[in-house]
Amino acid sequence: MRYRVGCDLDYEVKADDTPFVFNIEAQRRPGQAVARESLRFSQDLPLDRFEMPESGNRYVRLCADKGKLTVRYEAEVTLDPARFDPALVREVPAGRLPLEALTHLYPSRYVEADLLRPYAQREFGHLPRGHQRVTAICNWLHDNLDYTPGSSDEQTSARDTLLQRQGVCRDFAHLAIAFCRALGIPARFVSAYAWRLSPPDFHAVMEAWLEGPEGGAWFLFDPTRKSAADGLVRIGIGRDAAEVAFCSPFGEVGYGKPAVRIEALDRPAREALTTEAVTAAVA
Amino acid sequence: MRYRVGCDLDYEVKADDTPFVFNIEAQRRPGQAVARESLRFSQDLPLDRFEMPESGNRYVRLCADKGKLTVRYEAEVTLDPARFDPALVREVPAGRLPLEALTHLYPSRYVEADLLRPYAQREFGHLPRGHQRVTAICNWLHDNLDYTPGSSDEQTSARDTLLQRQGVCRDFAHLAIAFCRALGIPARFVSAYAWRLSPPDFHAVMEAWLEGPEGGAWFLFDPTRKSAADGLVRIGIGRDAAEVAFCSPFGEVGYGKPAVRIEALDRPAREALTTEAVTAAVA
Amino acid sequence: MRYRVGCDLDYEVKADDTPFVFNIEAQRRPGQAVARESLRFSQDLPLDRFEMPESGNRYVRLCADKGKLTVRYEAEVTLDPARFDPALVREVPAGRLPLEALTHLYPSRYVEADLLRPYAQREFGHLPRGHQRVTAICNWLHDNLDYTPGSSDEQTSARDTLLQRQGVCRDFAHLAIAFCRALGIPARFVSAYAWRLSPPDFHAVMEAWLEGPEGGAWFLFDPTRKSAADGLVRIGIGRDAAEVAFCSPFGEVGYGKPAVRIEALDRPAREALTTEAVTAAVA
Amino acid sequence: MRYRVGCDLDYEVKADDTPFVFNIEAQRRPGQAVARESLRFSQDLPLDRFEMPESGNRYVRLCADKGKLTVRYEAEVTLDPARFDPALVREVPAGRLPLEALTHLYPSRYVEADLLRPYAQREFGHLPRGHQRVTAICNWLHDNLDYTPGSSDEQTSARDTLLQRQGVCRDFAHLAIAFCRALGIPARFVSAYAWRLSPPDFHAVMEAWLEGPEGGAWFLFDPTRKSAADGLVRIGIGRDAAEVAFCSPFGEVGYGKPAVRIEALDRPAREALTTEAVTAAVA
Repeated sequence: MRYRVGCDLDYEVKADDTPFVFNIEAQRRPGQAVARESLRFSQDLPLDRFEMPESGNRYVRLCADKGKLTVRYEAEVTLDPARFDPALVREVPAGRLPLEALTHLYPSRYVEADLLRPYAQREFGHLPRGHQRVTAICNWLHDNLDYTPGSSDEQTSARDTLLQRQGVCRDFAHLAIAFCRALGIPARFVSAYAWRLSPPDFHAVMEAWLEGPEGGAWFLFDPTRKSAADGLVRIGIGRDAAEVAFCSPFGEVGYGKPAVRIEALDRPAREALTTEAVTAAVA
Repeated sequence: MRYRVGCDLDYEVKADDTPFVFNIEAQRRPGQAVARESLRFSQDLPLDRFEMPESGNRYVRLCADKGKLTVRYEAEVTLDPARFDPALVREVPAGRLPLEALTHLYPSRYVEADLLRPYAQREFGHLPRGHQRVTAICNWLHDNLDYTPGSSDEQTSARDTLLQRQGVCRDFAHLAIAFCRALGIPARFVSAYAWRLSPPDFHAVMEAWLEGPEGGAWFLFDPTRKSAADGLVRIGIGRDAAEVAFCSPFGEVGYGKPAVRIEALDRPAREALTTEAVTAAVA
Repeated sequence: MRYRVGCDLDYEVKADDTPFVFNIEAQRRPGQAVARESLRFSQDLPLDRFEMPESGNRYVRLCADKGKLTVRYEAEVTLDPARFDPALVREVPAGRLPLEALTHLYPSRYVEADLLRPYAQREFGHLPRGHQRVTAICNWLHDNLDYTPGSSDEQTSARDTLLQRQGVCRDFAHLAIAFCRALGIPARFVSAYAWRLSPPDFHAVMEAWLEGPEGGAWFLFDPTRKSAADGLVRIGIGRDAAEVAFCSPFGEVGYGKPAVRIEALDRPAREALTTEAVTAAVA
Repeated sequence: MRYRVGCDLDYEVKADDTPFVFNIEAQRRPGQAVARESLRFSQDLPLDRFEMPESGNRYVRLCADKGKLTVRYEAEVTLDPARFDPALVREVPAGRLPLEALTHLYPSRYVEADLLRPYAQREFGHLPRGHQRVTAICNWLHDNLDYTPGSSDEQTSARDTLLQRQGVCRDFAHLAIAFCRALGIPARFVSAYAWRLSPPDFHAVMEAWLEGPEGGAWFLFDPTRKSAADGLVRIGIGRDAAEVAFCSPFGEVGYGKPAVRIEALDRPAREALTTEAVTAAVA
C-alpha cells in the first residue's frame, strides 16, 4: 500500500535563536519504505539531523529567528506489512525475550506499569496468552473508556486515564502499554500518520513484542480502533509520549493547530478498514 | 586509581526455569578499564549476554533451577578520570545539545521533571549556570533532605522524595535528576560500586551533560556526598532506577542482602575523599 | 439482640504527660442502647470527655505518665435495628436531602469522590437507584477486590485501593463511600464492634443516607461481607478513617495488637449471618 | 467597623427542578453582627434553610426552574474584632485542646497534612511556637509561592500547590492549613467577603486555634496578604474548600462570573491595611 503523507505546522517565534526539535518524518524501516520526501521550513536555517539507532526516530533541529515559522513535510511511503494469523502469535517468556526488549517492560513517566500490576492481573491475568490477550486488553479499553477529545492533558498518565475512564489516542495507548508491561509483555508507544483517522491528526498507537511463526517482532495495536495497522505510517517510537513529541520548542512560542494529511495512492477511499494487525520485523 | 570490586548475591529459587537478569558487571568505557574479571554462578547454566549500545550496560540472563542460586562477581577496574576546573564547565543550550542527549531531558517514571519545573525554577532558576548550578542542586538536597535508610520503597519518585524530605541514595539521585531536567540540563541515573561507601552497598548517583573546555561529557555528581567521583565504578546507566536494577528475577524468589565490595589497590584506606567531580567522555 | 463488647489496649509510653485520645466506647443512639459499661485505665489519671453532637462519637482524653498504659473497655449493648424491605428504600435527590447530610457528599482525605466520579458513573450510573444500587456497589467491591490483610497502610485512599484491587475493611469502606458520594448518595465511615468478625478486631463499614417508608435514615452496609448489620455496634462515625481512629496518641508510643471482643448474649454462636441491612434513624 | 457586603450571581438553568445550595450569607457570630440583610432570587421559589451548628454556615436551597436564575445578597455587617498582642498568643498542646477542635487536626481532601508532616517539620518544626509560628508559615508561603490567577483548579490540593509553587487564595489557605495541622495546630478554611481585595471576589483565608490571655480562640490569617483580619466578613467555615462552596448546583448549569462587593461604611477607602490579626471567640 502506498500513501502520501505530510503535515503543515506553523509557529510564532517570540525570540531569536529559539531551538526547535521536530520528529515528523516517516521512519525508514523494514516494511516501511520512504520515497519522494521533502521537509521545508519558511526560514532558511542550518539543520541538525539525528536518526536514533535504537528507535529509528528521525530528529531535525533548527534555531529559529523571531517571527513566523512554518514547516511543511511531504513524503510517499510504501507499507508492506507482513500478514499473519493472530492465533499463531505467542507471548515470549522473560527467559527468551531479546535482552534489548527488556527496556520496554519497565514503567515510564506516563505508564506506571508497576502501580497497575494488580489491576492488570485481576482483569487479564487469567486470559489465554498471546496476540489475543493484547487484543483483549484493547477490547477492554474500547468497552470501558470513552474517547473524549479534550479530556486529558500532557501530564495525564495511564493511572489517571484508568480512573477518568476517558482520554484521547495518547491515553488509550498509555493504558494499553501499562497493562501489557504489567503482564510481562514488552510494549512501546508509536506516533503515526493514520489513514482515514477522523478528524486527521497525528495519531498514537502501541506495539507489543510477540512471537509469530517467523520469530519475534513488534506487533501494532490501536486500542482506539480508529485506524488499521495497514494504514499506519510510523513516525516516532518511544517508551511513552514523553519521548515522542512531534515538536519540542525550547522557548516561548505561539502555534496553530497542525494540519496532518494522509492519502492512499492505491486503495479506494471507502475501502473497509482491515482489523488484522500487521507486523514488521525490527532490525 | 585501581579498584578491586565485586559482590555476592544469593537467592532461593522457588521454581525451575526462573529467569534472572543481572546488571552487576562494571562498564567498559573511556576512563574505566576492566581487567581480571570473573562472574560465577552456583548453578551451571547457559548465559545470555547483552551490552546495550546506548548505555554500555552489561546484562546477563540465565534461567535458574529450583533451589539455591549464588552469584559472585569480581573485577579489577582502573579509573582514569579527567580532571577539570568546575568554573570552566558550562551548561549546553538546547540548540547545541547532541540530539542523542535529548532523551535525558524527558521525564521518566521516578523523575517527574515536568511536575517539578516550577519548583526547580523557583529554587535554582536564578542561579549562575554551569557545573556550579548542578553542585548547588546537590548542596540543596544535602541541606534540605535527610538520608534515612528505610524511608522509601521501590515506588518512591522524585516528587515523593521532595515532599518527604528524606530518602536513600536512589531518591537523592532521582530528585537531583528531576531538578536538572526541569532546568534543561540532561541528566541520568548511574548505579555504581562506590569506594568507602559506608555501609558497603550498591550506590546510586547521577550524571549531568555539561561542556568543559574539551567538549561535552557526562559529569558525575553524588548528591548524598557519600562517595567521590574518582571512587565510583559505573555499572548501570539509565533514565532512572526503573532501568538499572542489579537483579531482575521473573518469578517468586527469596533473597538475602547483597554483599558488595570495593577496595582501592593503590590508595591508602584513609585518604581524604576528593570532592571534585570527574568526567569521562561518552563514546 | 444483646452483645457484650470490649477491648484491651496496651501501650508503652515513652515520656511523661503524653496525651492520648480514645474513641472506643459504643455510641448511645436510637436502636443502640448501652448498659453496664466500664472504661478502666492502668494509670489513675484525670479524664476529659466529649461526645460530638453531630456524630455521637465519644472521646476520652488523658495525659499518660511514662511507662505501661493499659486500657480495658467493657459494655453490654442492645441493638434494636429496624427491619425494612430493601425494595422500598430509595435514594434521595439533592433537592430533598436534609441539608446536614450534604457534608457527606463532599470528598475527604481518603475518599476522593471527585476524582472517582467518571469511574462511578461508568460502572454504576445506569443501575436502578435505591438501596439496591448501594448493594450493587458493595457486590462490585466483593467481586473485584481481594481482602488482603497487610496490603494497605494508613495513607491508602479510595483511589489507591481501586488501582491495587485489594485492601482491608477500611479500604473497602472508603471505596464504597467514594462511589456513593460520586453518585450523589451521602455516605460516611463507621467503626464498629462486629459480631463474628474473624479474626476479631475493630471493624470498618459504611452508611448511606437513603429513604425508607418511614423517612430518611443512615443505612448500614459492609462491603467486605464479613459482618451483618444486626451484629454491628457503632463506635465512631466520620467522613473517613481520618476522623475515626480508636486511639490517637500525641507523642512516641509503643503498642501491642488490640484485643477486641464481642459476644452475643441472646443468639446462638453458629447462627447464620443475616444479610439484610438494618437501619436506625438519626436523631 | 461596618461593612456593606453583597454579591450578584447569575445562572442559566438547563432543566426544571435543578437544586442549588448557596452559602453566601454572612455568619452571625461573636464579633460579627449582621443587620439589614436581604437575599433575593429572580425565581419565586420555596427556600430550605439550615445553619450548621458546628460551623455557623448558613445554607439556602431551592430547586430552580429552567431558564435564568439570578441571586442578589446584601447585608450590613459590623465587625468588632478583639485586639491582641501576638507575642502573648500561644499554641495549645494536644493535652489541653478542646476536644471539638481535634477534627481540625485531621487531614482532609485538599489538605494532606499527613503527607506534608516531614516537610512541615523540616521548615517550621524548630521555630518558636505560638502565633508567630503561624505567621512564619504565612510568610514562607508569601516568599515561596506566586499568587497566579488561573494556575490551579478545583482538584488542586496542598501537596500540588507545594510542588507547583503557585496558586490562588484557596491554594494558599490549603497549604497554610496543611502545615499547621502537620505541626499539631488545629486549622480550618474560611471563605469571606474581604475589604479591598483586588479584584473583588470571594476570598479564602484560614484560622488556627491558639490561646491568648483570654483563652482559646480561632485566629485569622491571610497567607496571601491580600486582606486584613479586620476587613474579613466570614461566610463559610470548613475543613477545606470541599466544604465551603458558595454555590453547589446539582445538574447542568451555565454561569457568569460572580460580582462580589464590600464597602466600608466607617473607614476611609484608602486607609492602610492593618496587618495585625484579629480574633473572635468561638461559642
